[in-house]
Amino acid sequence: MTDSFSSSDDIRSGGELAHLQLVELPGVMALERGGELPGVVVGYETYGELNEARDNAVLICHAISGDSHVARHDGDDLPGWWDELVGPGDKFAIDTERYFVICTNVLGGCSGTTGPRTVNPQTGRRYGAEFPVITIGDMVETQRRALDELGIGKLRAVVGGSLGGHQALTWATRHPDRVENCIAIATSPRLTSQALGFDVVARNAIQTDPHFAGGQYYDEPEQPATGLAIARMLGHITYLSTEAMDAKFDPDRHSPRDIATAFEKKFSVGAYLAHQGQKFVERFDANSYVTISLAMDLFDLGRTRRELLSTLRSSRCRFLVVSFSSDWLFTPAQSREIVNALAALDRSVTYCEITTTAGHDAFLLVDEIGQFGPLVAARLDAALETNAAPAELRANDRRILDLIEPGKSVLDLGCGSGRVLSELRRRGHDKLMGVEVAQEKIIIAASRGLDVIDYDLNHGLPAFDDHQFDLVVMSATLQAIEHVETLLDETLRVGRQVILSFPNFAHQELREMFVREGRSPKASNRSSCGSSYGYEWYNTPNRRFPSIADVEDFCRAKGVTIHRAIYLDTGDTEYGREITDDPNLNADTAILVISRES
Amino acid sequence: MTDSFSSSDDIRSGGELAHLQLVELPGVMALERGGELPGVVVGYETYGELNEARDNAVLICHAISGDSHVARHDGDDLPGWWDELVGPGDKFAIDTERYFVICTNVLGGCSGTTGPRTVNPQTGRRYGAEFPVITIGDMVETQRRALDELGIGKLRAVVGGSLGGHQALTWATRHPDRVENCIAIATSPRLTSQALGFDVVARNAIQTDPHFAGGQYYDEPEQPATGLAIARMLGHITYLSTEAMDAKFDPDRHSPRDIATAFEKKFSVGAYLAHQGQKFVERFDANSYVTISLAMDLFDLGRTRRELLSTLRSSRCRFLVVSFSSDWLFTPAQSREIVNALAALDRSVTYCEITTTAGHDAFLLVDEIGQFGPLVAARLDAALETNAAPAELRANDRRILDLIEPGKSVLDLGCGSGRVLSELRRRGHDKLMGVEVAQEKIIIAASRGLDVIDYDLNHGLPAFDDHQFDLVVMSATLQAIEHVETLLDETLRVGRQVILSFPNFAHQELREMFVREGRSPKASNRSSCGSSYGYEWYNTPNRRFPSIADVEDFCRAKGVTIHRAIYLDTGDTEYGREITDDPNLNADTAILVISRES
Repeated sequence: MTDSFSSSDDIRSGGELAHLQLVELPGVMALERGGELPGVVVGYETYGELNEARDNAVLICHAISGDSHVARHDGDDLPGWWDELVGPGDKFAIDTERYFVICTNVLGGCSGTTGPRTVNPQTGRRYGAEFPVITIGDMVETQRRALDELGIGKLRAVVGGSLGGHQALTWATRHPDRVENCIAIATSPRLTSQALGFDVVARNAIQTDPHFAGGQYYDEPEQPATGLAIARMLGHITYLSTEAMDAKFDPDRHSPRDIATAFEKKFSVGAYLAHQGQKFVERFDANSYVTISLAMDLFDLGRTRRELLSTLRSSRCRFLVVSFSSDWLFTPAQSREIVNALAALDRSVTYCEITTTAGHDAFLLVDEIGQFGPLVAARLDAALETNAAPAELRANDRRILDLIEPGKSVLDLGCGSGRVLSELRRRGHDKLMGVEVAQEKIIIAASRGLDVIDYDLNHGLPAFDDHQFDLVVMSATLQAIEHVETLLDETLRVGRQVILSFPNFAHQELREMFVREGRSPKASNRSSCGSSYGYEWYNTPNRRFPSIADVEDFCRAKGVTIHRAIYLDTGDTEYGREITDDPNLNADTAILVISRES
Repeated sequence: MTDSFSSSDDIRSGGELAHLQLVELPGVMALERGGELPGVVVGYETYGELNEARDNAVLICHAISGDSHVARHDGDDLPGWWDELVGPGDKFAIDTERYFVICTNVLGGCSGTTGPRTVNPQTGRRYGAEFPVITIGDMVETQRRALDELGIGKLRAVVGGSLGGHQALTWATRHPDRVENCIAIATSPRLTSQALGFDVVARNAIQTDPHFAGGQYYDEPEQPATGLAIARMLGHITYLSTEAMDAKFDPDRHSPRDIATAFEKKFSVGAYLAHQGQKFVERFDANSYVTISLAMDLFDLGRTRRELLSTLRSSRCRFLVVSFSSDWLFTPAQSREIVNALAALDRSVTYCEITTTAGHDAFLLVDEIGQFGPLVAARLDAALETNAAPAELRANDRRILDLIEPGKSVLDLGCGSGRVLSELRRRGHDKLMGVEVAQEKIIIAASRGLDVIDYDLNHGLPAFDDHQFDLVVMSATLQAIEHVETLLDETLRVGRQVILSFPNFAHQELREMFVREGRSPKASNRSSCGSSYGYEWYNTPNRRFPSIADVEDFCRAKGVTIHRAIYLDTGDTEYGREITDDPNLNADTAILVISRES
């Protein structure tokens, strides 16, 4: 029972939302699945000030159990559900001294915005189960109209996690003219069948609660608290990873904690779950839970790549997608589906999978916010795109840069912290994309304003279309790859040409050591070809040890044309020394320009 | 909605169990958690005949929703829940022409054995919720007494999946004198907190159903069908993997199937789940579900390795443990905990993780039965231990065998199909264990009657105690290991001595090729050192390419003593030719005997 468990319901018990504001939308709202709602009211909170240029507004979208109270307004205020991400000063990724933040309660909710608990003006009684089926599209339409009423046009960003991510993605596709950045965290193009199955069970638990009374329980002495608590308990399990569950629940496995209330007594095993269920019942409306979870279930950007491409094609903004390794409700694989489609559409997109045992809940937790926060801050900061400091280049980088003509589009596989890409951007290239697996390097590259996606090259390049880039660069990466043939085929499919740079493992220093000493060769005095030579046989991260001749043989055997070859003794010079005499013996690094065309 | 979805409830709707037999236990049964049950009746079915030696009885234990009907008795019979595993003839792993199979309904169940629906002889009314809390130990005690009544002493094996596995493990520890083999499939030492959480939610759904009536619903017009259906639907989700859920549910995601009954209409989304829920309600008792799931939750062989060692120490039998890669309810990691403890206790144990997308349900499915069935058949077949055909040995194997003194205990890391181990067994060694990752090799080794565990050597050897074996053999395995230092430390910890055999990557053929041609060397004419030399630089499965000098340097640097070194030119001879002149140049294979002691 640690404080780190900060799902929104944990931090919102007792106390009204003192800063809640309301705006009534004019006219009647037609709904996507039929029906309409008159006189919709939207509850919202704001932080910071809209600047004169009116270009610093950030819309934050909440998850199923959240509300408009994304952060404290001041020291006396109740905690917000993203207190560690949103606040005044540059220690917050979403700095409310810089951005004007608005967070609305969703349509169908129960914390300010029109929902099932609202009195239907046409009947004079609460909607209850007569509240119409709504969609994520309807939620976004409500937000759009509310922003219109408030005079907010362009959004610097729409940001959300889980259901909030569904809203952010919908904004990006429905209102491409209004959204500059879409930040979608722990989300998906649609629920898995498993997640949908849990929702079905949860709604059934609510709707078959005898106190549900067909949804018209508001004036009854009893509420469907049991059903809602069961739904909430089930939800809690799905928000946590197995590891996180063990850490949290094992202590009271065989000796439940003290049970404080009659409600908890009813659920006497798993006191913590019951406690969560009860707290939720006190602040949430069962009909809202049914309404919102059904909207999530209906959300569907597409099951296939083709469908996703079709849905996402209308977007124009830049994207940041973040997933969490142990999230089994909204899996990293689902985030990758979105990212792959965006990459194929040439959208600006950065993607990072944060390694954590916290499960889906990670998007709300302080440790993980510490990890993805810098990515959010970088994506929001338009100035980075032009003002980032230049990177320090190595000899190899300089030679590769020389081979790239102005204006060419470039995909850099194993881009590291983005040295080559940031120099290309400085030189005016506008279609640039990096691929990297190391989280710390992704963050550095992103903080240079670059687009980098977190991607294991051993799985090929399914994200990208044929000849999507003029050039694919793969520098000091080949030797770490398991599936060399597949990846090389893939680079040649995705790039019109490929610039392949690699260390020569038949360099004379290595050869001599091997022949004279009969030992697995290494050399640590050559820094420019990376540290490829500097490892012991038993701990090198390299998997492949080709010579220049090996790679050139391989290209010929595969029908690949070598258009240009530069052989270098990188030594410790800035630019390296070009080798023409027996490069397979004398060069430590080769740079080949290759393609399928002759 | 394929037929391959064969959880037991799918195949038992309508129709009585025609072959159910009943036995009444004499006296009163005292229960582990207090209380007692008088006049317990056990429902069971049998297949085949008990032989004269009375040594062919196999007890099969069912899972939460199963019953005694493990297989058809004849062509007219209803399908059984393990029809593909149990039947007459050697195409069945549990051949009822060879073994006498008995399957009992569990205590607390509702298909023949005393449970909550039984009339309490002391009150004259059904137990209902007054049925006492029972444990897996009580279930096993009921089985033991029933077998006593039926005159069955020794069990050739106790076999079970899921809850059935809990019973099998309990038999092994409680009645070591009666069990020769324990076959525990898709099971665990205890439930994860996640699994326990789902059970809490499921029981709450049942117990808060208004028709539950405190458990005394039997004479009421309405039953707690809704609660039980919710519990069952939730269970179904946990039995399937995400992939299996998508395959099964995606077709009716947005257009539910035709809804046939009023019950299904109530659960109008997820028609399939609802259908499963309804079928279950028709044949299962809600109180039994509560009783049995609580017994599962209470099952606990130990959370820590120390606790597991303590619990499993009383066992004497041979074990087969099988897990499924996509089972997230009873995870492979949990099976490994059991296996690791058994291995540390020097118990005979074979373990295999079957690769499948079917989830926990895999233990009931025909495809996966096809995979683990041969392991079950091998473990049951006592004759294999002495009668298996001898393996074909390579030069390297023969040299290693020469180094092993009679009677020594041996752990073979990367044992393949068990060539060396089966020869050692033929020579009378009795403490032998193999480690292998390739499923097809594990099956061959097991069919030779050997103990093999499925284990990734990159994670060290946490299963084993210090100096647990006289010798650890690692042959033609070193070059495929990522974490060489850790693994070598581990082998030296677990074995008093280590026999390390590896290909010499500085052999003159390779050296010359590298120096003359400057190409990554390979040679395909040397079969005896494995195929280590025969790969291309871009597709070799080898990760490490040490020379003899490298490995010997490494040993010296790590303070490891080389007691003996044999250098071979294995060529294509049966025994290889020993090399004394510059082995680092002339030998293709080295065999080192090493230890931490000088």
